[in-house]
Amino acid sequence: EIIAAIEGLMKDPAVGHPLKGKRVLVTSGPTREPIDPVRYISNHSSGKQGHAIAKAAAEAGAEVTLVTGPVSLADPVGVTVVHVESARDMLAAVEAALPADIAVFAAAVADWRVASVADNKLKKGAGGPPSLAFVENPDILATIAKHGSKRPQLVVGFAAETEAVVDNARAKLARKGCDLIVANDVAPGTGTFGGDANTVHLVTPDSVETWDRQSKDGVARALVTRLAEMIAKA
Amino acid sequence: EIIAAIEGLMKDPAVGHPLKGKRVLVTSGPTREPIDPVRYISNHSSGKQGHAIAKAAAEAGAEVTLVTGPVSLADPVGVTVVHVESARDMLAAVEAALPADIAVFAAAVADWRVASVADNKLKKGAGGPPSLAFVENPDILATIAKHGSKRPQLVVGFAAETEAVVDNARAKLARKGCDLIVANDVAPGTGTFGGDANTVHLVTPDSVETWDRQSKDGVARALVTRLAEMIAKA
Repeated sequence: EIIAAIEGLMKDPAVGHPLKGKRVLVTSGPTREPIDPVRYISNHSSGKQGHAIAKAAAEAGAEVTLVTGPVSLADPVGVTVVHVESARDMLAAVEAALPADIAVFAAAVADWRVASVADNKLKKGAGGPPSLAFVENPDILATIAKHGSKRPQLVVGFAAETEAVVDNARAKLARKGCDLIVANDVAPGTGTFGGDANTVHLVTPDSVETWDRQSKDGVARALVTRLAEMIAKA
Repeated sequence: EIIAAIEGLMKDPAVGHPLKGKRVLVTSGPTREPIDPVRYISNHSSGKQGHAIAKAAAEAGAEVTLVTGPVSLADPVGVTVVHVESARDMLAAVEAALPADIAVFAAAVADWRVASVADNKLKKGAGGPPSLAFVENPDILATIAKHGSKRPQLVVGFAAETEAVVDNARAKLARKGCDLIVANDVAPGTGTFGGDANTVHLVTPDSVETWDRQSKDGVARALVTRLAEMIAKA
């Protein structure tokens, strides 16, 4: 009867597909902020963690939209993928992808962009190097977490920190108004940016949980399982 | 006897291998200049043109060293490849690769780097966006073109321009002290940066030649043939 029970479970579409019927939005990768037509500012995010989460959510039965900055990864199978460059493009694509039940903001979005982008390539001249002034980019995580009627039921942020990882993540959770922060240490030497493994801390308003170092795929599957539990309880 | 003649030519190692016995140094790709441990400044160079030149030079019989910034291209077969990030790293790798008979500087090297790189990730704070000050990077092309005893016999620069392409290239040729500038128009809409085709102008002290738009592999083979002719005449 054990086999019969297992067969019964396997026929239940909810088992193994805990996110069936749910819409999940994931952001991934870096953004690129132009300086002039050839130069840009970016960051070392590879998109591996965000892409792995999109894949794991699709495998868990969700209808997934992945909004990604420029990465050298293949589009995950079974996922709707929207490719963007700048933070402002990413926000527009995220808003276009709503409504969603769960939103996971794993992209490393540029906090700032260059205040005035040059129409032509900046030249080396007698005046010496230029000095760039910046303006703040829209805060995609906070915008969506405070979206009112269109706020997804679960809003998850990522924090890429090089120091005081958990303290910075707690502050970010409160400031942004999200439900969960996945904090990872991206200091040089950790190999997190660009690497295949990740050590993460799950920070909620009343708890901090540190997961053993594991593959980004492993983090993705465990996170998706956790999100399915949270949304089932909510 | 035509066949015999062809067979004779094919046995001649110089035919089809016009750079046999020559050392060729090629740079390729963008450089990345750090802002802090996670952010950097880079540019849209894909490395396709530089890598194609390294491959074409190797196929022409040369002993090739390719010094490349971060690209998502495979290392060309039969070429010694050195991977670097910043302009200063690239200059050091180029100097270490000398002497060479021909040097082709196809990399899109950052003209400037951030004056003081932050040890930790810059945080969004009450003070608003940071303002970045820059200092000029070493000029790899000019340094090697004016290297005295170690100057390669032929020094070739690239100019990526968005306006006044040929005029800027002529000025660059004079200023840098190189033998040939390959100028290409990388304005948005040309598809040159990242694309597979290129329209180039060959600028020497006393001529400008515009080549039909063709694949970057085609440009590479034609350029290598030209360089072999130039070095044979010199």
